[in-house]
Amino acid sequence: MAWESLNPPRDYLKAGVRKPYRDVIDVSWGDPHRAGVKPLSFVRQVLAACLYPKLMEGDRLMVDVRQRAQRLLKECAGGSIGSYSNTAGIPEIVQRVSEFITRRDGGVPCRRENIFISSGSQWALNILKVLVNSEASPRTGVLTPVPCHSTTILSLMALGAAAVPYHLTEERGWALEVEELQRALDSAKGVCSPVALYVINPGNPAGYVQNRKSMQEVIRFAAEKRLFLLADEVYQDCVYGKTEFVSYKRALAEMGPPLSETVELASFHTASKGLMGECGLRAGYVELVNLDPAVMKHINSLFSTNSCAPVLGQIALDVMTNPPQPGDPSYPLYMKHIRTSLAENVRRVEEVVNSLPGFSCQPVEGGAFAFPTVFLPPKAIERAKEVGMKPDTFYCLRLLEEAGLLFSPGTEYGQKEGTYHIRFCIMIPLDVMEELLRRLSGFHKRFMKEFS
Amino acid sequence: MAWESLNPPRDYLKAGVRKPYRDVIDVSWGDPHRAGVKPLSFVRQVLAACLYPKLMEGDRLMVDVRQRAQRLLKECAGGSIGSYSNTAGIPEIVQRVSEFITRRDGGVPCRRENIFISSGSQWALNILKVLVNSEASPRTGVLTPVPCHSTTILSLMALGAAAVPYHLTEERGWALEVEELQRALDSAKGVCSPVALYVINPGNPAGYVQNRKSMQEVIRFAAEKRLFLLADEVYQDCVYGKTEFVSYKRALAEMGPPLSETVELASFHTASKGLMGECGLRAGYVELVNLDPAVMKHINSLFSTNSCAPVLGQIALDVMTNPPQPGDPSYPLYMKHIRTSLAENVRRVEEVVNSLPGFSCQPVEGGAFAFPTVFLPPKAIERAKEVGMKPDTFYCLRLLEEAGLLFSPGTEYGQKEGTYHIRFCIMIPLDVMEELLRRLSGFHKRFMKEFS
Ligand SMILES: Cc1ncc(COP(=O)(O)O)c(C=O)c1O
Ligand SMILES: Cc1ncc(COP(=O)(O)O)c(C=O)c1O
Repeated sequence: MAWESLNPPRDYLKAGVRKPYRDVIDVSWGDPHRAGVKPLSFVRQVLAACLYPKLMEGDRLMVDVRQRAQRLLKECAGGSIGSYSNTAGIPEIVQRVSEFITRRDGGVPCRRENIFISSGSQWALNILKVLVNSEASPRTGVLTPVPCHSTTILSLMALGAAAVPYHLTEERGWALEVEELQRALDSAKGVCSPVALYVINPGNPAGYVQNRKSMQEVIRFAAEKRLFLLADEVYQDCVYGKTEFVSYKRALAEMGPPLSETVELASFHTASKGLMGECGLRAGYVELVNLDPAVMKHINSLFSTNSCAPVLGQIALDVMTNPPQPGDPSYPLYMKHIRTSLAENVRRVEEVVNSLPGFSCQPVEGGAFAFPTVFLPPKAIERAKEVGMKPDTFYCLRLLEEAGLLFSPGTEYGQKEGTYHIRFCIMIPLDVMEELLRRLSGFHKRFMKEFS
Repeated sequence: MAWESLNPPRDYLKAGVRKPYRDVIDVSWGDPHRAGVKPLSFVRQVLAACLYPKLMEGDRLMVDVRQRAQRLLKECAGGSIGSYSNTAGIPEIVQRVSEFITRRDGGVPCRRENIFISSGSQWALNILKVLVNSEASPRTGVLTPVPCHSTTILSLMALGAAAVPYHLTEERGWALEVEELQRALDSAKGVCSPVALYVINPGNPAGYVQNRKSMQEVIRFAAEKRLFLLADEVYQDCVYGKTEFVSYKRALAEMGPPLSETVELASFHTASKGLMGECGLRAGYVELVNLDPAVMKHINSLFSTNSCAPVLGQIALDVMTNPPQPGDPSYPLYMKHIRTSLAENVRRVEEVVNSLPGFSCQPVEGGAFAFPTVFLPPKAIERAKEVGMKPDTFYCLRLLEEAGLLFSPGTEYGQKEGTYHIRFCIMIPLDVMEELLRRLSGFHKRFMKEFS
């Protein structure tokens, strides 16, 4: 198992490729707008009004859009989104985010001092700096899933931490099993000293959603081994199956003392995902739970070296956590946009992909991706070796060349030795998904024939 | 000499203060909009059109605004500012930034591969990571000016580097003198091993602008001592005196080989400063010169751990480096806004402050701040000690309490033992500046009388 550290990840696929399709469908990112999803108009109207307040003259914009923009501008220093904010974010927005979290978690209280808004949730991983002692020998370790969103692994390495891989069990819908956590921890002995456990829920690239029981086991394990829990919950609004999303914060609180008062937890969220999908605005937040005040002080200074998160991104977070309510003039249109259900996409992916020979796709319960296994024929594996490529990279390259589909190979995320996967974003318009599935089916059958 | 590491820097001044002025003038940041400067409408119109393309229907916006927005949207993945860009920035914008630099430097070529757009120029200081070996003993050192913009010092410390202070010579308009660089370098012996020299030009907090001769001396020094030159040139558009701004890149190129081909240089710029003053958008860039390809590879991976800079900020950089041209419909209004000259502010500051007893202000040739010396009476110094404060912090606190002016004390930036300074932003509307000077004069006379 290995992660290829490529930057930007998929450029090696694109370089010098002849493509029969002018319109390459790029589903190699978790980036809804890139793949054709339309931005939510309420979000964009509020942002545009804050940016260019003249738009609020007259009644071109709904009254709730104008009121929201006016309130937000009052909260910006000098009444402009062009001024720096506090390093943790505009205090009123931070306050409203904390109220959202309390509502989401059925009343489990959230303190605003524990919220830090950052330039994307990825940046917030930097809080690990307070845990990672880059001068320590052996090195600081962080337990990370296989497969795992590759940027996280790169960030950990950049921070000087070692990733200690634990495998998710594909056959059981990519389940996170405590025995495997224990095996991973044991494997670190003499290599590095693990201080944190990173979980992604809902998953990326694997689209599982953890249930309460599984989370409770993970929490108990973290408590016992004194591991800091890093819960990457950026896909919390992207749930399509039977399992509802429960935050680690809530699961922890419901377990009661002493656990609820001792397990250290960081939970990440972002404006990049969900139906908002505003990746380019770069804004996310982290909530910290049960941290020592001395550590919180360090985290405060850490954030202060980066000025503040983009103010327009902060505003998007405000809208994300406080969307229009029934009765508001923008509510009907907002709901219409939000209802663009992805469940149908997911159903079609599972149906079509599982019907193809040599493919097997676990249920996509949540997240932004499908991550099916592809059983590559020995001849294809051989050919890949000849051209010096990983077999799944070879498959993705041919897929791009011949079908104009830009997927990413499982090799980028880590996978069990001898297994191969492909990842593609499912947050795309339904018609694009149908075209994608059509191209994938045609290509795959030709490919399997060629190498049979 | 010491830097207080405070976060957010001025909160200690604001805490629990009774203020006779409801409208505190906050000039403690280098943040024009906070202090009442209006955003440039061309910038805001282009941004709003990109954010909410419906605005381009009809002819409410000038045709050049619409054309610019349309072109920029085509350059965004999926035609939306809501998608991630390449980690170094949108390639077409990077290209136009590099063309701007070439024009600015009278034709000295700039290669787009050497430009990285980041979430504010402050973030780009992270390139130091490739120079700083946090495990090294003795520690890696970076020569830094006294006085110095405090966030830089915090960032260096966060990176695990030691700041090696060199003093600017206040009496000679805060000149940067090579003998002092040598003294600083010598002082590091046995303490840390300096690998880089950080210069701010034009200065912050001290408002000097370096001339070519001084820059050439600094470059020769860096070459001789094999120091990486970090040129913080974010105030390049803020020049009010006789000395014109010359970039280090240009000065270096004009010196010819071997220096022009060997001295390693990073130059920083941002959308936060200048007349645009869009701090809240969080976008800056760094140009790297003469770096080893292996190091450039590291820098590429470094940037890739942070996804990308906010796309709207990238667009602001595009406008900053490619403003409307004569003949464009938006040109006349743009020029009217740009001409809001700060030179008059600077003239008034020097005139009024230098007329006050116990104040001495060097000419403000550039940058965003005045940084006068204040000769505090012994009784004031004693009183400050009694209440456990640095004398200039005490002065600033009283200034806030009694005159509603939020300045920052020299102690935050470093200053020669026994000298005291105050810093305030001069990028504010002229009427606000007059009010500020009136309050400062009144307060200062009362203060001097009280402690005489
Ligand atoms: C699991 C996970 N965490 C974090 C991120 C980063 O998101 P952001 O845009 O907030 O940095 C992503 C992006 O794809 C992700 O998939
Ligand atoms: C000298 C200097 N460098 C860098 C910065 C940071 O600017 P940015 O907003 O681009 O991070 C500032 C901000 O005040 C500054 O004064």
